[in-house]
Amino acid sequence: MIIVLKPHATKRQVDHLIERIKTLGLKPMVSRGTERTIIGVIGSEDALRVQPLEVIPGVEKVMPVLKPYKLVSREFKPESSVIDLGAGVRVGGKSVVVMAGPCSVENRAMLFETARLVKRSGATVLRGGAFKPRTSPYSFQGLGEEGLKLLRDAAKATKMRVVTELMDTRDIRLINQYADVIQIGARNMQNFELLKEVGQLRKPVLLKRGLSATINEFLLAAEYILSQGNFDVVLCERGIRTFEDQTRFTLDLNAIPVIKKLSHLPVVVDPSHGTGSWEYVEPMAKAAVAAGADGLMIEVHPNPEVALSDGPQSLLPKRFETLMREVKKVAAAVGRSVSKEAER
Amino acid sequence: MIIVLKPHATKRQVDHLIERIKTLGLKPMVSRGTERTIIGVIGSEDALRVQPLEVIPGVEKVMPVLKPYKLVSREFKPESSVIDLGAGVRVGGKSVVVMAGPCSVENRAMLFETARLVKRSGATVLRGGAFKPRTSPYSFQGLGEEGLKLLRDAAKATKMRVVTELMDTRDIRLINQYADVIQIGARNMQNFELLKEVGQLRKPVLLKRGLSATINEFLLAAEYILSQGNFDVVLCERGIRTFEDQTRFTLDLNAIPVIKKLSHLPVVVDPSHGTGSWEYVEPMAKAAVAAGADGLMIEVHPNPEVALSDGPQSLLPKRFETLMREVKKVAAAVGRSVSKEAER
Amino acid sequence: MIIVLKPHATKRQVDHLIERIKTLGLKPMVSRGTERTIIGVIGSEDALRVQPLEVIPGVEKVMPVLKPYKLVSREFKPESSVIDLGAGVRVGGKSVVVMAGPCSVENRAMLFETARLVKRSGATVLRGGAFKPRTSPYSFQGLGEEGLKLLRDAAKATKMRVVTELMDTRDIRLINQYADVIQIGARNMQNFELLKEVGQLRKPVLLKRGLSATINEFLLAAEYILSQGNFDVVLCERGIRTFEDQTRFTLDLNAIPVIKKLSHLPVVVDPSHGTGSWEYVEPMAKAAVAAGADGLMIEVHPNPEVALSDGPQSLLPKRFETLMREVKKVAAAVGRSVSKEAER
Amino acid sequence: MIIVLKPHATKRQVDHLIERIKTLGLKPMVSRGTERTIIGVIGSEDALRVQPLEVIPGVEKVMPVLKPYKLVSREFKPESSVIDLGAGVRVGGKSVVVMAGPCSVENRAMLFETARLVKRSGATVLRGGAFKPRTSPYSFQGLGEEGLKLLRDAAKATKMRVVTELMDTRDIRLINQYADVIQIGARNMQNFELLKEVGQLRKPVLLKRGLSATINEFLLAAEYILSQGNFDVVLCERGIRTFEDQTRFTLDLNAIPVIKKLSHLPVVVDPSHGTGSWEYVEPMAKAAVAAGADGLMIEVHPNPEVALSDGPQSLLPKRFETLMREVKKVAAAVGRSVSKEAER
Repeated sequence: MIIVLKPHATKRQVDHLIERIKTLGLKPMVSRGTERTIIGVIGSEDALRVQPLEVIPGVEKVMPVLKPYKLVSREFKPESSVIDLGAGVRVGGKSVVVMAGPCSVENRAMLFETARLVKRSGATVLRGGAFKPRTSPYSFQGLGEEGLKLLRDAAKATKMRVVTELMDTRDIRLINQYADVIQIGARNMQNFELLKEVGQLRKPVLLKRGLSATINEFLLAAEYILSQGNFDVVLCERGIRTFEDQTRFTLDLNAIPVIKKLSHLPVVVDPSHGTGSWEYVEPMAKAAVAAGADGLMIEVHPNPEVALSDGPQSLLPKRFETLMREVKKVAAAVGRSVSKEAER
Repeated sequence: MIIVLKPHATKRQVDHLIERIKTLGLKPMVSRGTERTIIGVIGSEDALRVQPLEVIPGVEKVMPVLKPYKLVSREFKPESSVIDLGAGVRVGGKSVVVMAGPCSVENRAMLFETARLVKRSGATVLRGGAFKPRTSPYSFQGLGEEGLKLLRDAAKATKMRVVTELMDTRDIRLINQYADVIQIGARNMQNFELLKEVGQLRKPVLLKRGLSATINEFLLAAEYILSQGNFDVVLCERGIRTFEDQTRFTLDLNAIPVIKKLSHLPVVVDPSHGTGSWEYVEPMAKAAVAAGADGLMIEVHPNPEVALSDGPQSLLPKRFETLMREVKKVAAAVGRSVSKEAER
Repeated sequence: MIIVLKPHATKRQVDHLIERIKTLGLKPMVSRGTERTIIGVIGSEDALRVQPLEVIPGVEKVMPVLKPYKLVSREFKPESSVIDLGAGVRVGGKSVVVMAGPCSVENRAMLFETARLVKRSGATVLRGGAFKPRTSPYSFQGLGEEGLKLLRDAAKATKMRVVTELMDTRDIRLINQYADVIQIGARNMQNFELLKEVGQLRKPVLLKRGLSATINEFLLAAEYILSQGNFDVVLCERGIRTFEDQTRFTLDLNAIPVIKKLSHLPVVVDPSHGTGSWEYVEPMAKAAVAAGADGLMIEVHPNPEVALSDGPQSLLPKRFETLMREVKKVAAAVGRSVSKEAER
Repeated sequence: MIIVLKPHATKRQVDHLIERIKTLGLKPMVSRGTERTIIGVIGSEDALRVQPLEVIPGVEKVMPVLKPYKLVSREFKPESSVIDLGAGVRVGGKSVVVMAGPCSVENRAMLFETARLVKRSGATVLRGGAFKPRTSPYSFQGLGEEGLKLLRDAAKATKMRVVTELMDTRDIRLINQYADVIQIGARNMQNFELLKEVGQLRKPVLLKRGLSATINEFLLAAEYILSQGNFDVVLCERGIRTFEDQTRFTLDLNAIPVIKKLSHLPVVVDPSHGTGSWEYVEPMAKAAVAAGADGLMIEVHPNPEVALSDGPQSLLPKRFETLMREVKKVAAAVGRSVSKEAER
């Protein structure tokens, strides 16, 4: 930690500050420059996180040197993590994992049809919401446990893994019973109680980036999970909020190389929510893979016209098939393959 | 709802669309322009919210005419709501209510001292966190129930009302037992399960705007609560995320007149979190009142240097006293007063 | 400047870096911490601005200690600047200066009528565009020199000062001939050639904040003008671009106390452009004054229905009169007055 | 254009509105819904752009149906434009054009070395700034005409085309003399006088997206150029300003498919400025090509440590060579090639 003093900080202020630093068990190193005095603080920054040195008179600003997260950082674990979703599906290795399915589970027929079709094109994880976070209280809120059962059945029939969203700490046992991967949605990325709870499980977690979360906050949210003992976290970029309104969100592909540099955790990309429009899903899916994404999460619906949620961003199975063909070519161009069938 | 067709939409596409509209029990009104055909849809837009007409071939865009919320709107209830917090404290009327106290409850002595001091300067509601949403898992997470008890005791001793944050549906009974006003924090503004639960209570809710929530989404979050039967909602602007980094967030005072126009609910402003720096709290508090805020929420700490959270944005009691004097003058200039003592 | 090294920087890398620092005539102070080595650099940071030390192997990040601007800073000039616009109008002192008028100069009758009305209510500076920066090439582009002449005439008739926008270096002599204050618009805040040119003049400049300019960049743009010798710069906050779409921009009143802290230059606020809607102009004008603004810039049009630009945000003269009455009360509450008549 | 009336608009208000619409030579189509009356306006929207119908009493909102630009739209010209830069270099066709070189022209030796190296790896257009828009007045401002001459010489020696930035209308003849493509920088995207001037030329223009420009505004800026008669415009995405600070800007690759849908103009991407860090240039360049970009603009410097501007984002020639190899593979995967040598 580095403390920059105000130009005219008094000796008394400097002495008071040095004393406080020593009280915290740290070692101050004072260097008097031509225009400012600067104090470098040596020792664990943890102590300082709690203590607001900015408010001490004479202090102009405090600049942390170390990163605020630890377990998720590449410094802590230099090699990339490969997360095992079971049945042979692994995220973070050479193959790009594709998660696909409808936004919401609506009924048995539609879910089974979608699962079969996406499986055939190469998806290995079935996505689908049973509990839905909807902006309006008047929108369809999901089928609940009935939806979870259908997901499990459809996954069994197609030998896929299931990822579905947990929205409330009270539902954790229920979701855990049916899901292979527990999704924490963008709106819950800083629902810290939820993060602590899934940190207690021994099951992979797909953590979506909050729509206005910095990458720093995103990694700190993951740190909540790892700090409870669960290291099986897959990060998911799904678009951030900006001023641009031609897309529903701005899918931030820069996040892929940035996260890869800072953290060992794998990153998947959701171009369906990220753009909000099926027309942009294919180019952005290809771009995500070219930028180094470890996986894709894509919404597919056999009849978007009657979808109960997010119809405009869902692909027809036909288009998904084309997209998969195209994505495989791009994956090959960057030395990767698209995941094959999950064995059960 | 208005549907704009693509320039070369075919007759078959238009017919299909008209049929779908009729299937939903609505009445299409077709008007063929020189460059585009436009279809106005008459009837309840609720049906259409669920059905993604954008995905129907030939459709270029769908523009909703009505607002997506209802109960919170000024059209539903033209006169401004006044929310009774009990013991004579009312938000939304002529007087500006001041909520003040430490960011976190840290210990008995500090809390009681702060409560007495802010009360003396004119605050009527005591704020303080017992459960804290912290960005890092390594930061102080709050005293829990012990903190709630201290809050209740301090409020009793000073004849103030208590507002404190609920973070998890499992804690609702606990918080309800100690709080007069239940706060939903910015990071939980779209924690829809939490919103539904507080909607079931008969206790005032202080709903903070999410840091990247549009005003539309903010009002829809409030609609979740009202739609469950609880109409006692106070909205709180606390800063949005923008590119500017001189302040921790950008306190959006424009939200005050905008919300006043759209909704009957009262609005309070939190300049402490909104700016993240005690130096900006006083000017922004005065500006908030000048813009029409119904209340202020301000962090005060007797010794910010040792605060366990948010020290840099906390005011010393001395400065809070000055701020209150200044705020009272501005309130008078806009025809309002600052709330007097709460009777118990 | 502080240089943080990577955890495993080699001795050779550190030596190379130290050598480079010395080559630049600066003094490195190395402090080896438990986790990182940090080098403080003593001497003028100017040399370092040009040299990208970040790219030297072994360097993790470079943190500047000093501010990048100098002449505009409060450290350079602790007392607030008062800018003399001539004829007794001064910005930055005790009185709040009000600049008002139509968005564009449209014709003689309308301009004279508006000038008379705003003058009567207390405005002392007449605003009006003769050259208009319009987003679309098909919008009204202004009357050009004819508009400038009308402005001058209207100002003479009403004893007001004139502020009008300069958009192109080629027009500088022309504008200088007619204007008392030269406005640099938001879209030209980083038109550096324009900044250098007005820096050569001895005439007050009103510099509007770019719609995505940080306060740091805003002050650096002003520094361009001061560094050429023209110290008469008035800063103008006029709304920044954020995700919120209920207002055209997000008027950032936080900028007022932030700029006041960092710089000695006066700040005026334009709530008309900042919100884009006449309904929000009055509350935000009052809030601006409560937050410490030194002036207001407000669009007034006798018949907004037929305005050739920005009608929706223009106030009727009647409403402007009311606004002025209200603003005067708020100004009094914060110890200021609204400027009286300019003498000529 | 569609006009939504307020719930309780009076008959007189509606009649006044209808009359105004007719006065403008347009045809109103009134449809009275259960909750609102809506008026569709048939005829050219151009007339309405100038007239602010929002301010007419009784009007709640006005929703434009048509796009505000015309010549740049794909509706105006359905097939994609291919812009000829001369000497066989064409942007917008099957091959991806690579523009590379230093941020600023610094001296002859460095420029010629860079040009030779990037040419060898497959770049066909030499980029380099002679006039530099710098945030600080104390930063290196470019070599001016001397730099232009060096660029021309280096391009001649290597058989490349030259793209360089025009910052001021007064320099247009000078730049036009030396450049094959005239660049309008991000900070000048809404410098409308500059746009009009290059619109008068018959030379390709590379228009960079403003850092807070919506795609709509970006296309309108291009419309300024086309409306003057110059149809040879290449658009360049170079990062937008968001809250994320791990990258200097947020390179918005979503803009590629969005612009391709709305406009016939080609799009190139600048990952160097877009991310601000050389480490992210390669993944984002590959992603851009995968998403459909027609070209890349990349900063290369033989010794970034001593670069006079933007060193941190410049690639070493070695890394540029690797990048080109990788980009070619991705281009092939999406059915494109990277441009070969420009013939002179």
